[in-house]
Amino acid sequence: MKPDSARAVYDGKLFDGTVERWGDHEREIVEHPGAVAIVAVDTVGMLTLVRQPREAARKRLLELPAGTLEQGEGPEESARRELEEETGLTGGTWRELAAFYTTPGFCRERMHLFVAERVERGRAAPEADEDLEIVRWQTAEITHRLHEIEDAKTLAGLLLYLHEADTNA
Amino acid sequence: MKPDSARAVYDGKLFDGTVERWGDHEREIVEHPGAVAIVAVDTVGMLTLVRQPREAARKRLLELPAGTLEQGEGPEESARRELEEETGLTGGTWRELAAFYTTPGFCRERMHLFVAERVERGRAAPEADEDLEIVRWQTAEITHRLHEIEDAKTLAGLLLYLHEADTNA
Repeated sequence: MKPDSARAVYDGKLFDGTVERWGDHEREIVEHPGAVAIVAVDTVGMLTLVRQPREAARKRLLELPAGTLEQGEGPEESARRELEEETGLTGGTWRELAAFYTTPGFCRERMHLFVAERVERGRAAPEADEDLEIVRWQTAEITHRLHEIEDAKTLAGLLLYLHEADTNA
Repeated sequence: MKPDSARAVYDGKLFDGTVERWGDHEREIVEHPGAVAIVAVDTVGMLTLVRQPREAARKRLLELPAGTLEQGEGPEESARRELEEETGLTGGTWRELAAFYTTPGFCRERMHLFVAERVERGRAAPEADEDLEIVRWQTAEITHRLHEIEDAKTLAGLLLYLHEADTNA
């Protein structure tokens, strides 16, 4: 699938907008470089989440550590950088669990979801925003605490992680 | 949480953009009226999905029936309308399974996820787009076919549906 033509309609700080012509219709699209999210489980079996203020939602949300791909960065490289920046966690065994579009009706964003197991807590505190709170759950608690999650990637990520564990059990 | 001020920065056909001031920083936000998605299972135990071209992804994606809230419409009303429009399915027993933000880093969209069970196939074909293909899966197949899904709400919705069935088993 390829558009006949495309024109930039908005040049913002966080996102740009494009209108593409596809045959007889036009489609307005939010540009996005792609993103990563990580289900990170440490050496003592704890899952690490982050709670942060989300202006668009006007509330604090509990989410998987996640971020946006930087220019020239591969998905796993980006995911390792974001995880360390947000939580101080490093190392571990990584695999990509899935990749999905977050809002394919209007935005280009494709997200790569990783599982990082046996990650290690760093000695130094992460250089996180003061507004980013680290939250740790026992992996056995996840199933009982899903109702605390109001973010699509985090629901999809935690449920895929549980589903994979079930399937392999 | 409330911003100090907000200004419109983009007025598009499909979405608008706002920049909000929050204390010492500004946040650029894609406006969205909210959305619905439906895990619809009919009287013979088949799940209904839709496959449609997604310009932003430049490919056809297999997704839950879904749509955007119209002015003055409640979530369940919207979900029943979208399901009938896209698939011709009506009736059944409905419940809200979850509500989540799809991309809280930059967009206001909050999605209500419904499960509709024992829905009935209408006599008339839906007035769907020619480009919208109806796909039916046995509910028992879902777990083996998740790798065909590249859409976040569909992954979250199907996994929540399976998880709930497991928890109640």
